[in-house]
Amino acid sequence: MISTKVLQEFQSIVGVENVDDSKAGRLVYSYDATPQFQSMPDAIVAPRTTKEVAELLKVCNAHQIPIVPRGSGTNLCAGTCPSEGGIVLLFKHMNRLLELDHENLTVTVQPGIITLDLINEVEKHGLFYPPDPSSMKISTIGGNVNENSGGLRGLKYGVTRDYVLGLEAVLANGDIIRTGGKLAKDVAGYDLTRLLVGSEGTLAIITEVTLKLIPMPESKKTLLALYEDMDAAAKTVSSIIADKIIPTTLEFLDQPTLKVVEDFVKIGLPTDVKAVLLIEQDGHPDIVARDIENITKICLAERAVSVQAAKSEEEAEALRTARRSALSALARLKPTTILEDATVPRSQIANMVKAINEIAIKHQLNICTFGHAGDGNLHPTVPTDARNSEEMERVELAFAEIFAHAIDLGGTITGEHGVGMMKAPYLEWKLGKEGIAAMKAIKSALDPLNILNPGKIFAKDSRKRVVISK
Amino acid sequence: MISTKVLQEFQSIVGVENVDDSKAGRLVYSYDATPQFQSMPDAIVAPRTTKEVAELLKVCNAHQIPIVPRGSGTNLCAGTCPSEGGIVLLFKHMNRLLELDHENLTVTVQPGIITLDLINEVEKHGLFYPPDPSSMKISTIGGNVNENSGGLRGLKYGVTRDYVLGLEAVLANGDIIRTGGKLAKDVAGYDLTRLLVGSEGTLAIITEVTLKLIPMPESKKTLLALYEDMDAAAKTVSSIIADKIIPTTLEFLDQPTLKVVEDFVKIGLPTDVKAVLLIEQDGHPDIVARDIENITKICLAERAVSVQAAKSEEEAEALRTARRSALSALARLKPTTILEDATVPRSQIANMVKAINEIAIKHQLNICTFGHAGDGNLHPTVPTDARNSEEMERVELAFAEIFAHAIDLGGTITGEHGVGMMKAPYLEWKLGKEGIAAMKAIKSALDPLNILNPGKIFAKDSRKRVVISK
Repeated sequence: MISTKVLQEFQSIVGVENVDDSKAGRLVYSYDATPQFQSMPDAIVAPRTTKEVAELLKVCNAHQIPIVPRGSGTNLCAGTCPSEGGIVLLFKHMNRLLELDHENLTVTVQPGIITLDLINEVEKHGLFYPPDPSSMKISTIGGNVNENSGGLRGLKYGVTRDYVLGLEAVLANGDIIRTGGKLAKDVAGYDLTRLLVGSEGTLAIITEVTLKLIPMPESKKTLLALYEDMDAAAKTVSSIIADKIIPTTLEFLDQPTLKVVEDFVKIGLPTDVKAVLLIEQDGHPDIVARDIENITKICLAERAVSVQAAKSEEEAEALRTARRSALSALARLKPTTILEDATVPRSQIANMVKAINEIAIKHQLNICTFGHAGDGNLHPTVPTDARNSEEMERVELAFAEIFAHAIDLGGTITGEHGVGMMKAPYLEWKLGKEGIAAMKAIKSALDPLNILNPGKIFAKDSRKRVVISK
Repeated sequence: MISTKVLQEFQSIVGVENVDDSKAGRLVYSYDATPQFQSMPDAIVAPRTTKEVAELLKVCNAHQIPIVPRGSGTNLCAGTCPSEGGIVLLFKHMNRLLELDHENLTVTVQPGIITLDLINEVEKHGLFYPPDPSSMKISTIGGNVNENSGGLRGLKYGVTRDYVLGLEAVLANGDIIRTGGKLAKDVAGYDLTRLLVGSEGTLAIITEVTLKLIPMPESKKTLLALYEDMDAAAKTVSSIIADKIIPTTLEFLDQPTLKVVEDFVKIGLPTDVKAVLLIEQDGHPDIVARDIENITKICLAERAVSVQAAKSEEEAEALRTARRSALSALARLKPTTILEDATVPRSQIANMVKAINEIAIKHQLNICTFGHAGDGNLHPTVPTDARNSEEMERVELAFAEIFAHAIDLGGTITGEHGVGMMKAPYLEWKLGKEGIAAMKAIKSALDPLNILNPGKIFAKDSRKRVVISK
């Protein structure tokens, strides 16, 4: 509980109207997009400036009050669940685009700006911000930076990290630091910029972001390749890359996902095939035409039963929207939707898909799998019901086996969703005790009182590693 | 001094033949490519495996013996000068290419591999490793990773950091950790991979590197644009980027540099103009042709007196080699060559070049400037004589003013050479006390006894910030 005196301190910093400790307000911010995690914060505080953030942090540090920074709460790792109470730091006021710099091809924004608003704004000027998480209509850049979000264009263009050039951030002690800048190159000391990207609000509170932009690609083509056999689809992915073609997008949806998505979007997706690949290439029209032709040949050589090009940008956009709506569509099936994020080297996609299906059968679960196949980043998803504790136990066992398999294939427990609370018990499987110890040392160095998003990334106990029978 | 007992421990780990404490051996490794820095190590130790590195570190940690990891010592920041004695850890045995993975487009190497050997090997397979520091014929990948090296192709393709996917590293306590992997995406905890890139051997000893490769561009064209006016050359750089063309290479050489380089390479470089831009574009032939045509128009519109395309790949390679030899050529002029690395947002290149020339006149120095104009990364260079203490004082004053100007223009004190000992006194100008404190906290967390390359990055005292008269 936060004392009345401290609440008044918060009010004097951000104004009475920007501190909410009502039960309704606290309930709203007691959870995020992650099922099964809920915990009440003591108050919601919405700062208007970096200086206010710094003052709030000094008060929180003095009283050891936890701070959970939050954009729109679309993360899927319970990264913004206020598990230890304290304040939710809401960036609803700090949501402006501060500067679009045409000479340096950069944009500087406050963390609360909605991702899609930023993308639309820069595209008006012929510029391109590639990271496009499926939640981009709602998610904020601050959230994307804290989680190092990916998206559908990651294969060719990389993830959020690859576009963050500079940050302003407030440390736990209230110090304001600036990292990087509008600079193509900067090696002045440790790379705090990239250390903070993906640190899930546990090392500092990000208050300003300078992003790199690139020229807008001139054209784009979209293909849908259909398969009677999931293995053939997975092999197509490896063959395209091994042929040294890097498409913008190379997405995979299996039959169960296709059926659910088609039922949701009703755009005539094929539901009678075992899998589809959604493939896009962008750039100069001649290169796009050539790559699409070569990709089509590879798909057919790898036993695609049909390869169709989108006839218009509208049709292509409908396909992309359908893919982006996969989670929403799956979430309609059952009360609880558990979506995971195991990632493997892309050469192992076929093996991973096979393993997921075997694990589903073993645990008698309906696992729908879709995701960024070109990145080796799959989202196996189980529609379930949290009230069915017997089934939930099987879900948990299945995911533990999926994580263990991903790691055995040279992969990781999370490609783009972050660790948060959801994957914290499994982190040691990927990093070992030594890796965890190194990360904990960094956390303690920058936040000795553990006030910044406590309870995230580092679990109190690691799960026992499951043994995979091969 | 290291005791005989400890030397014997080293010998029992790596073999007698891989420990050298002879005076001649120690003298050879008492300096690197940076002038004015020399300090004798106690011994040179050359491990053969990661396990040996881990055992050596445990011994060094127990006895608080400094360790300076070293590839070829081509760095220009005194980053591998053993300023506090201890051992130089030499990677001459750990220089193998371990695996070229065609399906995942990655290459895994030991740190001692020569950069150009790696580049040549992957190019045999139609793959491309873009970072090409001027020293690449001699430098090692381990050194490139520790310094986050840039190169001539950085404008379009980025720097070493952008290609490091995974690392194996040994911590100060001897723990072996693995970060990342052959993965397009990985957000399992803090980004230790990027934290270690550019950390100059102060946080861990890197023992294995997995690098991302990309498909080899199909074609390349090279232009030389000549200017009677440096400002016009600088403005051309901004105009090209603002026109949303991102060339592979956009290098700048001023007249004094041109004269020295031509005298060295004798390939008929123009020496009667004030500045040249070396511009390259690569990719699909049609796009290259179109971009080169547009770039030529922009150069002429910005008052280039001549724009010539290289007539053959041999001629283009001669131009690139000439540019890469700038430091070697300048080093022939006088006993001491002080080369700097100030970097600004690319829109500020014209202002920075102007400031450098004014500072040169003010301090009566001959400053030759060349560098990666497209990255805003300039290398103002003073041929001087360390024995002339009066002139050296003016050189130091001039560089302090150059750093201060770069920072005032939104830039940094080092774009690609690193901080080491050379720029440590200026680091606070860029980062502030708060930024330095955060970095020191990370250093202490991972290396509490300060055995990993001590005396680098963090200076005992910061220089007083010079006041720029405008």
